[in-house]
Amino acid sequence: MPFDAPAESANNPVLVEVTRGGAVESRHRGAFAVVDTDGRVVLSAGRVAAPVFPRSAIKPIQALPLIESGAADAFALSDAELAIACASHNGEPDQVEAVTGWLARLGLGAGDLACGGHAPKHEPSARALARAGQAWDGRHDNCSGKHTGFLTLARQLGAPTRGYVGFAHPVQQRVLGVLEQMTGLDDLTAQPRGIDGCGIPTIALPLGNLALAMARFGAADDQPERRQAACRRLRHALAAQPRMIAGTDRLDSAIAQALGPRCLAKTGAEGVYGAALPELGLGLALKIDDGAGRAAEVALLRLLTRLQLLDGAAGDALAGHANPAVTARDGRTVGEIRPAANFPGLGE
Amino acid sequence: MPFDAPAESANNPVLVEVTRGGAVESRHRGAFAVVDTDGRVVLSAGRVAAPVFPRSAIKPIQALPLIESGAADAFALSDAELAIACASHNGEPDQVEAVTGWLARLGLGAGDLACGGHAPKHEPSARALARAGQAWDGRHDNCSGKHTGFLTLARQLGAPTRGYVGFAHPVQQRVLGVLEQMTGLDDLTAQPRGIDGCGIPTIALPLGNLALAMARFGAADDQPERRQAACRRLRHALAAQPRMIAGTDRLDSAIAQALGPRCLAKTGAEGVYGAALPELGLGLALKIDDGAGRAAEVALLRLLTRLQLLDGAAGDALAGHANPAVTARDGRTVGEIRPAANFPGLGE
Repeated sequence: MPFDAPAESANNPVLVEVTRGGAVESRHRGAFAVVDTDGRVVLSAGRVAAPVFPRSAIKPIQALPLIESGAADAFALSDAELAIACASHNGEPDQVEAVTGWLARLGLGAGDLACGGHAPKHEPSARALARAGQAWDGRHDNCSGKHTGFLTLARQLGAPTRGYVGFAHPVQQRVLGVLEQMTGLDDLTAQPRGIDGCGIPTIALPLGNLALAMARFGAADDQPERRQAACRRLRHALAAQPRMIAGTDRLDSAIAQALGPRCLAKTGAEGVYGAALPELGLGLALKIDDGAGRAAEVALLRLLTRLQLLDGAAGDALAGHANPAVTARDGRTVGEIRPAANFPGLGE
Repeated sequence: MPFDAPAESANNPVLVEVTRGGAVESRHRGAFAVVDTDGRVVLSAGRVAAPVFPRSAIKPIQALPLIESGAADAFALSDAELAIACASHNGEPDQVEAVTGWLARLGLGAGDLACGGHAPKHEPSARALARAGQAWDGRHDNCSGKHTGFLTLARQLGAPTRGYVGFAHPVQQRVLGVLEQMTGLDDLTAQPRGIDGCGIPTIALPLGNLALAMARFGAADDQPERRQAACRRLRHALAAQPRMIAGTDRLDSAIAQALGPRCLAKTGAEGVYGAALPELGLGLALKIDDGAGRAAEVALLRLLTRLQLLDGAAGDALAGHANPAVTARDGRTVGEIRPAANFPGLGE
């Protein structure tokens, strides 16, 4: 399933501009691909065959083995738990509680999470923790749900829970197989590989193949019944528990709240987005060259607008993310983040 | 003093790459100019005539009227106070104390600062404040030293201290005149103008003119004696009080510590740097297209290396900033931030 666009050797175009006063202060280049479940490109711009690390944008696909292995049933996972297995969460109290309870049912704790940990991304939650004299641990890590999913899968596979982040561990190998099937790439071991921030392998994929995986996640009709059921169950969980995927003031949760099962969008570090659009039978992937999340969000919403998903109330609910104000610290609006005037690839 | 490079219409080149595993994950484009005190371009790449907002990189120039007006003598400003007037500081206790004491001598307090305020940039200081149940105020704002300087200048000019951030206020008009002289631009009111994060006007300048201002700040030999003395006094203060310009783990302080009066470097938001190199009679300005500070730092140090300022101990002291590791949260090094293989403009 090769995604070789004619402009593959050219520079990626400017997708997003940041203004101050009447001038453009900063510019973000990038590439995107929107494809159907057969891998046909519906919309694209820039180098869609160049490999990019999907980072956390691939989490919903990484969570499929949790269901397909029987672990989700064996451990009676709730929608909230399945949703947080796909999340880059804020470390807010309800999210940390969900992870804590899930770990406890496994007979495990924060010390079994190999993701490291960091202060909650949600600033008020981080401050509250500090005020209470408490330290953060692995449960506050934005990837702790995914890692708890990996621990659950290890249990289900009868594999050791220690070392589950290693490339050769049965958990990562099971995930690798699902990634190969969903991306249409036969041998992911031949792709560039790195270590993600949370310690697990991350494998670089052409944007087109990441978009294909998202298309199949959203509309897996031609996949085996077990895969279809797993995708359906995860999509349902994400739409039912929109707070779990990200949290307060976060775009992925706002999209899940506004669009429910019509759009399942997942951010990844370094300016990546993946989104499944089940109604349209399409998948979307984008990467900002320089890694800026602020630009990835605005580009994503420009594409969702073009795909006519942001009409009416959904558009109103997401307007602040689609065209964010740049503000001075005294509260004044002094600029904006906006799609480039000639946002490419959208000839209607 | 026009800076029209031949490649003015072309894209800015890639200056910095971010890797993960063996692959390049993100790329940062940008432009830079190194010029002498006559505005002759010694090194450059990209569009050096396109206007960029200098943001906080211009602070040392904005502090000159504080000395030239007689305010620094009238209020017996210390080196630490002059240095923090040029700073984007961390909001650490010694920095907040310096601002607090200075304001008190003016008979003013945090409520007179128009910069707004934010939690200290220095995370441990922010956490300590939260643990102590204290709120941040304008003094913790990274620009509070500059604003206290403006209040001091207002006092010296007999102007109202309220409204000092307005473009028409005597303080900002005095600063404007000095900016015009130092940048070699006759009429800055004709340039694009915006509001900075701290509420004051910021005026877009060609990078070449920002570099010229920095060259003159470092080696003002052909300027009037009063200007020469003001530049000398500020350079001395910055070299004598390296912590005040930024703070713990911050590049500008590390450069001041390692190079003293040989290099006075000042970061600006959205990927800007300005640096005066007095020994060489040169000034430097750079801007990363996408606004990334991580790339601006690496590009600055690549240029300082090329200018042979980072030999020996200084190079060792700054090695961690010149080529920072990308780490996973478990502490492993998983990539690096590095100058692009073909870092442009350095034909030796």
